[in-house]
Amino acid sequence: MGLKPVKIGLLGLGTVGSGAVQVLSRNAREICRRAGRGIVISHAAALEPPKLPIDTSAIKITQDGFAVVNDPDVSVVIELIGGYQPALELVLKAIENGKHVVTANKALIARHGNEIFAAAQKHGVTVAFEAAVAGGIPIIKALREGLAANHIEWAAGIINGTGNFILTEMREKGRDFSEVLVEAQALGYAEADPTFDIEGIDAAHKLTILASIAFGIPLHFERCYTEGISHITRDDVAYAEALGYRIKHLGVTRKTQQGIELRVHPTLIPERCLIANVNGVMNAVLVKGDMVGQTLYYGAGAGALPTASAVVADLIDVVRSLTTDPNNRVPHLAFQPDSIKDDPILPIGDIETAYYLRMLAEDVPGVMGRVTTALGRAGISIEAVIQKEPSEGVAQVPIIMLTHRVHEKQMQAAIAEIESMDCIAGSVTRIRLENLE
Amino acid sequence: MGLKPVKIGLLGLGTVGSGAVQVLSRNAREICRRAGRGIVISHAAALEPPKLPIDTSAIKITQDGFAVVNDPDVSVVIELIGGYQPALELVLKAIENGKHVVTANKALIARHGNEIFAAAQKHGVTVAFEAAVAGGIPIIKALREGLAANHIEWAAGIINGTGNFILTEMREKGRDFSEVLVEAQALGYAEADPTFDIEGIDAAHKLTILASIAFGIPLHFERCYTEGISHITRDDVAYAEALGYRIKHLGVTRKTQQGIELRVHPTLIPERCLIANVNGVMNAVLVKGDMVGQTLYYGAGAGALPTASAVVADLIDVVRSLTTDPNNRVPHLAFQPDSIKDDPILPIGDIETAYYLRMLAEDVPGVMGRVTTALGRAGISIEAVIQKEPSEGVAQVPIIMLTHRVHEKQMQAAIAEIESMDCIAGSVTRIRLENLE
Repeated sequence: MGLKPVKIGLLGLGTVGSGAVQVLSRNAREICRRAGRGIVISHAAALEPPKLPIDTSAIKITQDGFAVVNDPDVSVVIELIGGYQPALELVLKAIENGKHVVTANKALIARHGNEIFAAAQKHGVTVAFEAAVAGGIPIIKALREGLAANHIEWAAGIINGTGNFILTEMREKGRDFSEVLVEAQALGYAEADPTFDIEGIDAAHKLTILASIAFGIPLHFERCYTEGISHITRDDVAYAEALGYRIKHLGVTRKTQQGIELRVHPTLIPERCLIANVNGVMNAVLVKGDMVGQTLYYGAGAGALPTASAVVADLIDVVRSLTTDPNNRVPHLAFQPDSIKDDPILPIGDIETAYYLRMLAEDVPGVMGRVTTALGRAGISIEAVIQKEPSEGVAQVPIIMLTHRVHEKQMQAAIAEIESMDCIAGSVTRIRLENLE
Repeated sequence: MGLKPVKIGLLGLGTVGSGAVQVLSRNAREICRRAGRGIVISHAAALEPPKLPIDTSAIKITQDGFAVVNDPDVSVVIELIGGYQPALELVLKAIENGKHVVTANKALIARHGNEIFAAAQKHGVTVAFEAAVAGGIPIIKALREGLAANHIEWAAGIINGTGNFILTEMREKGRDFSEVLVEAQALGYAEADPTFDIEGIDAAHKLTILASIAFGIPLHFERCYTEGISHITRDDVAYAEALGYRIKHLGVTRKTQQGIELRVHPTLIPERCLIANVNGVMNAVLVKGDMVGQTLYYGAGAGALPTASAVVADLIDVVRSLTTDPNNRVPHLAFQPDSIKDDPILPIGDIETAYYLRMLAEDVPGVMGRVTTALGRAGISIEAVIQKEPSEGVAQVPIIMLTHRVHEKQMQAAIAEIESMDCIAGSVTRIRLENLE
């Protein structure tokens, strides 16, 4: 306990930044008992003066982030500004100055991580980013260290709380997407512009990071297939439930002989799976390792204090490794930099899943035969069908099908053929289905 | 990658030992890509020649464990013998020889951990024990490092797969305890002598370790309250379900102002909790941190390869820290040795929970009034009641109650009074209930 406290520079005093200040203050004694020395924020940059419920008079506060990353007293910089710029420039400058970096910035790591980690390696510093994926859940640590004995086969995660809240409300209350979105915005779970969350971009950032750590590949955010949840109807949710499934906005990455699958999309999963029962704003990541089998990690994926919990855990790790030979630290992407392999990322058409299909058919004889014939010609066999009786005075009837596994491009061809039939009204809804086995 | 492979000594070539050999062999390349150098078992001790599906000709095999721990070429010793002796003597000798130790031995750590960690600190080596708790789930790492920013409030775990398998089968198939136990033994999930599993001793070993890491206290296995599941009937399981609960054999540890709760017993938990849906032989640990909230860790708690996954993850950690200053390594019990505090462990009578009560009453007027009066006098209020109509020709009727939270000693006094009533037949079954909030 004789060591001097480590001085930290903080970039950003918004929600998570304020959370980090609070965690370090409220749990200072316990953190010191764990880390073996004190950890204090000495210099912080924020555009506006912070409003915090604790005394921050010992923190030098500036509007200039570069004053923080150039401060010779600062050993570790915490970046909590978010976005690409000026975060990237500040992080690279901190690294160049020989400072370790802790960040919660998923967009920055997913898009610029390769450059950032190369710079960190060159300067012998660590860039820690536990808070960038699934908030307070220590999934980076679990995957990178806890499962290090395994060949990772796949990982699947509910890694956007907004989307999971919306799908949960749709199921539990039988409500429509747009209605729940408005509620989520009122509750502060969704942004005024919810695109990043509901279109899967935020989840794609996180999945890109998970995939690199799981498989030892460079970060390829730009190749992640991304599909949102705004086209999911409450009928889809109800039909899925009737068939024993839940619809979740899942990030899935899998290593196959042909290459890596990297995709975010709505997915039917069997309700008996533990992850199908992760509700509301909670996150969970399910990982399949060849030796350990399936393990699951669950917790709060967002929020000031849960995210700050991960930021400060990283900080403690970094403080403990201040004197460690850089070559013996845990590698940024789990694998040693010289053994990262650039395995191909598969285009979505080459990916195989089962499917849920919903279409509206004219109530005339022979429709089902024509649809199944089209699917059969494409090599697609059917696992289950729900065909509803038409309501009074309505001439169209919904048909719901679950198919066996098939390549996406075959399914797309079959759907195009079905949509061209005069007995089918409008487009066919297709949602991928994963048994997660 | 230029570093020479690290040589490992292995004590025990039974189920988990063979698993560790297989993991290191089958995933050798991926492990090397992660660890930055090879890891090879060079010397192993086993009472009988191993039968392994892989080539072990490069491993020197002996019957003498001391030959392994005294081998100057060996840097790390893996102890997979189990039990107290000779494991303790071998581990202490390895430490004295300056070798790091990895062990899966929960009994050894729970009972002799304080002595072992003191010896390790003296000799500047690490003793890693991820595999000792919940098999392949990296719960030690999550709790010790991933949640290091938190004040841990409590942890609750399903940490014995045998017990969870039995309770799951009782619920899903409406079968009796003794019948399912026989099946579990036939399937190899339960030992010929199942005492350690079904009486909660194995879970108590693991919970003792979790509590020390969560709260920074010495290991106090001898003070862990332990109650088994053999008295749970299928009726209890069914009544609990009718009330919206599942019965799980839970290890619970909680920090209160008065001291630490440390207890293993059957527990009703609400079925909407994720952990209530952990079925079969699977394990899960739920942790409540003040900053992160609840996080849950789920996976295989036993088995050769899952346990070996944790052993080898520890090995990779140890190999990475070979050159680290011992004072900067992660402390064995999460907190620095000089800041471990010996907080009191509370006796079971001082612990507060809600209760499920089941009793058999004579079918005469006024029984319910007498029972509720006795509970009321002890300050116990009732949350829910199920009173069944007596079956044809039966003069006794079961009464099932859920109570609010109360100190165990008050409940015991009230139960004694109820059992003394002439209108109550036999003893009152009481099962603790936790809402896990």
